[in-house]
Amino acid sequence: MARASLDFYYEFASTYSYLAAARIGPLAEAAGVEVVWRPFLLGPIFAAQGLTTSPFNVHPEKGRHMWRDLERLAARYGLPPVTRPPSFPANGLLAARVATVLNDASRPAFSRQIFHRAFAQGEDIGEREVVRQVLAGLGHFCADVIEAAERQENKDRLRAQTERAKAAGVFGAPSFVTADGELFWGNDRLELALDHARALAA
Amino acid sequence: MARASLDFYYEFASTYSYLAAARIGPLAEAAGVEVVWRPFLLGPIFAAQGLTTSPFNVHPEKGRHMWRDLERLAARYGLPPVTRPPSFPANGLLAARVATVLNDASRPAFSRQIFHRAFAQGEDIGEREVVRQVLAGLGHFCADVIEAAERQENKDRLRAQTERAKAAGVFGAPSFVTADGELFWGNDRLELALDHARALAA
Repeated sequence: MARASLDFYYEFASTYSYLAAARIGPLAEAAGVEVVWRPFLLGPIFAAQGLTTSPFNVHPEKGRHMWRDLERLAARYGLPPVTRPPSFPANGLLAARVATVLNDASRPAFSRQIFHRAFAQGEDIGEREVVRQVLAGLGHFCADVIEAAERQENKDRLRAQTERAKAAGVFGAPSFVTADGELFWGNDRLELALDHARALAA
Repeated sequence: MARASLDFYYEFASTYSYLAAARIGPLAEAAGVEVVWRPFLLGPIFAAQGLTTSPFNVHPEKGRHMWRDLERLAARYGLPPVTRPPSFPANGLLAARVATVLNDASRPAFSRQIFHRAFAQGEDIGEREVVRQVLAGLGHFCADVIEAAERQENKDRLRAQTERAKAAGVFGAPSFVTADGELFWGNDRLELALDHARALAA
């Protein structure tokens, strides 16, 4: 039997990526599915759709519902109460570069912490200091990691990841892609994606 | 204890309204929640958002995912395989007028049948003949019902229902609204909405 795996595409400014990142670890473990954490940038993908900001800003009613929905789901999942970041969408570029440069073992914890800072603590993850604090809290040498994250080759890796997402048909975040190329969009589809990944490998 | 109830806003051209309509009966019964079926028109609501067609047509990737998602969910829910209607979104005006004129006891079965014709049989529910067949199959005198559906007072009732949806903050379909005004958008939120309706009444 092949090892079941699932590509998890997420963007740090995305509220539903936060929920998926908070949930995916235990659910994937229970399902016997290996998760590949793939941070990417929604900006270029939204731009290609003609959007200059989040759809939740374009349609205010949709935005209002999204924040309320996030509060309700956070409560249901046992996550801390939601605190909105100072601006939405946040600039997740530095955090995404750092997540890209970290190795597979360190990326999930860093990513979950960044999301927690953004949507539970309501901090601006675009602030370099917030990223530094998260790295330091996880025992990384933050100056070294940030320097590596901002090298051209790592910027290019993040760009390639976004291109990979686009090629997989990703148009929003979070998205999940299984080995056969099936695309599942949204935190609500995490369970379905895991089921499919497991069925594929069986 | 107050009777738990839930407003179910649906539009016949909406694929996820189909899924919700197919599921809500047994789920609401199990939850002890009374459902008020409220057909409305998305057209005027989308128009107020500056949209002239479905968001699934505006963004082709989103549209492709939606149809695939619909197939997967139909399989998961034990519904028949999806057959796409000849055009999307369909013109659900006549069906919505008929659903409006029918009484509370007849509205759910008619609505489920229209959705089944649209998304399981792939028929054009904008065709008067399809609406007639559904009515006849349920034992209604279809000529009488359609005549009543097209009277001005019934057209006005449907318009008022759409205004009611708008006033409740509805921006897409399906939507669920509980007695305290909480809005839940999307088939994915049906269970959460039922839980909330039940908790409110307890």
